[in-house]
Formats: sequence, structure tokens, C-alpha cells
Amino acid sequence: MPAPTINPREESSNSLQAIGVLHSPFTEKFGIPRQANLITSAYAEIELYPPYNDPDAFHGLEAFSHIWLSFSFHLNADKPWRPMIRPPRLGGNKKIGVFASRSPFRPNSLGQSLVELREVRIQNNQASLIIACPDILDGTPILDIKPYIDYADATSDSRCGFAEEPPKPRLKVVLNKPFKDKAQQLSSSYPDDLLALIVEVISYDPRPAYKQDQEDEKLYKLRLYDLDISFSVEDGFATISDIEKQLS
Amino acid sequence: MPAPTINPREESSNSLQAIGVLHSPFTEKFGIPRQANLITSAYAEIELYPPYNDPDAFHGLEAFSHIWLSFSFHLNADKPWRPMIRPPRLGGNKKIGVFASRSPFRPNSLGQSLVELREVRIQNNQASLIIACPDILDGTPILDIKPYIDYADATSDSRCGFAEEPPKPRLKVVLNKPFKDKAQQLSSSYPDDLLALIVEVISYDPRPAYKQDQEDEKLYKLRLYDLDISFSVEDGFATISDIEKQLS
Repeated sequence: MPAPTINPREESSNSLQAIGVLHSPFTEKFGIPRQANLITSAYAEIELYPPYNDPDAFHGLEAFSHIWLSFSFHLNADKPWRPMIRPPRLGGNKKIGVFASRSPFRPNSLGQSLVELREVRIQNNQASLIIACPDILDGTPILDIKPYIDYADATSDSRCGFAEEPPKPRLKVVLNKPFKDKAQQLSSSYPDDLLALIVEVISYDPRPAYKQDQEDEKLYKLRLYDLDISFSVEDGFATISDIEKQLS
Repeated sequence: MPAPTINPREESSNSLQAIGVLHSPFTEKFGIPRQANLITSAYAEIELYPPYNDPDAFHGLEAFSHIWLSFSFHLNADKPWRPMIRPPRLGGNKKIGVFASRSPFRPNSLGQSLVELREVRIQNNQASLIIACPDILDGTPILDIKPYIDYADATSDSRCGFAEEPPKPRLKVVLNKPFKDKAQQLSSSYPDDLLALIVEVISYDPRPAYKQDQEDEKLYKLRLYDLDISFSVEDGFATISDIEKQLS
């Protein structure tokens, strides 16, 4: 059987074309929640490139509440693949197979995420999509969009190994007054409820897993959009001390 | 931000490597059910290529009951993309956008299917996977395998447009005695309950949608493995008349 673009056993190339790019608040890896749809106070936009921004290509999609994004873990695409990885969910000290994980460090660097579709936006006869904020880095190339079909994409009797339960917020978040004032001044320039987004992201504890059960005096910086947010953690409380706009 | 292998706006190539190949009964497109997991009487095998057949790379996967396959619609990879398609579910006469569909004729020719994992098989220190029979052609290059994680991959309140309900068996299947005898003789050479598989596939009515509501005197041939199965349809009954082994 002919296989025009993928030659299974040889090093070969399949011409992949990004159909669009994701714009999200997550401009750095640090702080990205570990599954899509944990963050409810922000949205993301998929800018579609021509000719894929043809409104016809999305005709009927508004009847679906959720969509699949196929994308490239583009920052990892040239990194070496390893058979075993240490997933953050297991505290970073237990190894499992890369194909038993959702690790971004994998052969072919392909990712997939289920996200809520909020709007198919048509402007000047060009389509773009507004979606719930996914666990995907700003600037990620989008390779495909498919409707979520419940009877084909979900199963009622699954066993899910180490990932039976979704991650839960781990930290209570305390806002210093100077931070709060600055955040409120800045918020009108950003698309979401900025303060709610920051609190939500930090409540999931973006620190490395090994830090989570030990004393930690470090001042962390989290970047969302072009904002650097400083916080520290003690006894289950995260204190946000500052926010600064960066020239990115 | 650097994008080492996908240059969004230019015709560019991302080096994709098949990690394995699917072996399934569906050696031709005709007859493939329109969603994974409709067929319960057959299984498929994923042969993994070195170095991806390293058992370490699958360590822990057996704790998951379902997996995602990412694959290439390799026979369509060089076919032109069109913004609108006619999905068989809508009778083949209503157009929708390609991104509102699961059509195999899509930019990047990427497919994804949820399938039941039956076994992670380790032989001679090499891994292969036994899965429930998916809606995927024999010989399809597999690009990625990921565990299904219920809380991230399913949603309890979806709207699913034209695909709210799974396809149902449409035809009652009648077996001629000569066919039945030949099928029973052949069955020991095939991995599944061959007769059950044939009945199941034909019950979903593999004919083109426009034929389904009109008189139809045609004798159809369905190929499973290297077997040609002849059947005809009248008044909601499919009569299977013959089965022949082909030199493929």
C-alpha cells in the first residue's frame, strides 16, 4: 500500500503545515496548569492562517461545545526522545514510559487537548476561534481542529492509572496590597479578569514537585502575558508580592 | 519564540517518524465502521518499530484501559484539501466545514482515535500493543500513543452537533449456507471470530449513504484481511452469498 508522505522505517519527512497559532496568557512554561480546562478565568484565541481561515471550513462547528486541538510541542521538537520520563503528577521521582504519559518530550512532539469552544468568530470574512484557556504555551502552532464527539471520544468505564483524579488547587493565595493595586491598574489592558487568572494559576502551585513538601524561601517569578508576578510560598499559603510589566 | 521544525507561515516540513504500524482486518476503506470501537468481535495489533518498541517506553501503560492513537491518513496525504465536505452521517448530501468533521480529507491528514487497550505484549524484550478493533485502515502509520485520562479527555456536558448519537446497526444479516460453510473452514486461519466480525461489519451497512434508501440490486464485495465477501441488500436485510480468499 503506498504511503506517500510517511515512510515508516526510514527517517523521512511529512510536510506538516500549521493551520494557525494559539494566543494564550502562558508566555512561559512555568505556571502552565497540567491539564486543559483547569483555568476558568481566561480564554485563548486561535488565529487561523489563510487559506484555513475560510469561514466555510468551520461551518457547523458552532453546534459543538468542545473541540480537539492537535498541536506541536514546538519548543521540544528538536530535543531528544527518551523511553522513560518523570511525570510531575508522581512527584517527579518515579519513572514511567513516555507512551504511558502526556509528557511533551515525546517522539513526533504531537500534543492534543480537549477545550471548550466559546465562539467561532467571523470578521472580514475570516474565521478565528475563541476557546477556554488550555494548558498550551502562547505561540504554539496548531495542526488540526476536530469536533469532540461524546460517544467516540469518551468512555464510561475507564481505568486511568496514575491520573484517576484531576489536580486540585494546593495553595491558598494571599495578595499584598501593593500588588493588588498595581494589578487592578493593569487589568484593563488585558482580556481576562487578570486578578482571578493570577490567583487561579498560582493556586495550582507551579513550583517543581520536589519543592512542594519542603521549606522554601525562594521568591518565584511567574510570567503571564508580558507581566512578571512575584510570589513566595510558606505552609500552604502563596503570597503574591509584586507585578511588573516587562518589555518582552 | 523559536519554532525549530514548523515554520508557521511558510511551506515547511516537520520531520514525522512513524513509531509503528497498525495491523487490522480492514485492508480496504469500504466497510470500515465510521467510529472506533463499534466492532467488538475483532482486535488489531500495533507493531512498534525500533527504538519505539522498547518495553520501558510503555511501562505503566497497562494501568490504563483506553489509549489514544495519533495516526496519519496516509492514503489521503497527497490529496487536495477542501473547506467543506459531505459527511456520510448526513447522508452524503449536506456540506459542513472540514474542521466541524472527522473527515480523513483534511489539512495535515492527522487522525486520532480512542481505543480499548487489551494488552501490552512483551516478547523478546520488544513491546507491541493489542487493541480493540479501531476504524482505521490496515497498514496505517502510527505517530503517537497516549493514555486516555478521563477528567481531561471527556466532558459531561457536551453538545455534539450532528453526531449526538452513535451509528446503529442498520441491517439484519442473513447467511447463505455455502457462505457459512466456507467461512467456518477459513476461520481457523484468522485471529478473530471471523463470522461474527463479518456479520458485525455488514450490519452497519457499508454502502454509500445515497444507496441506503433506494432499491439496490448491486452485488457488493467487502474485503476483510485477504478475504472478499459478497453480499447484497434488500428491504433492510443483507444476504451474504460468498467468501473467497484472494491473492493480495
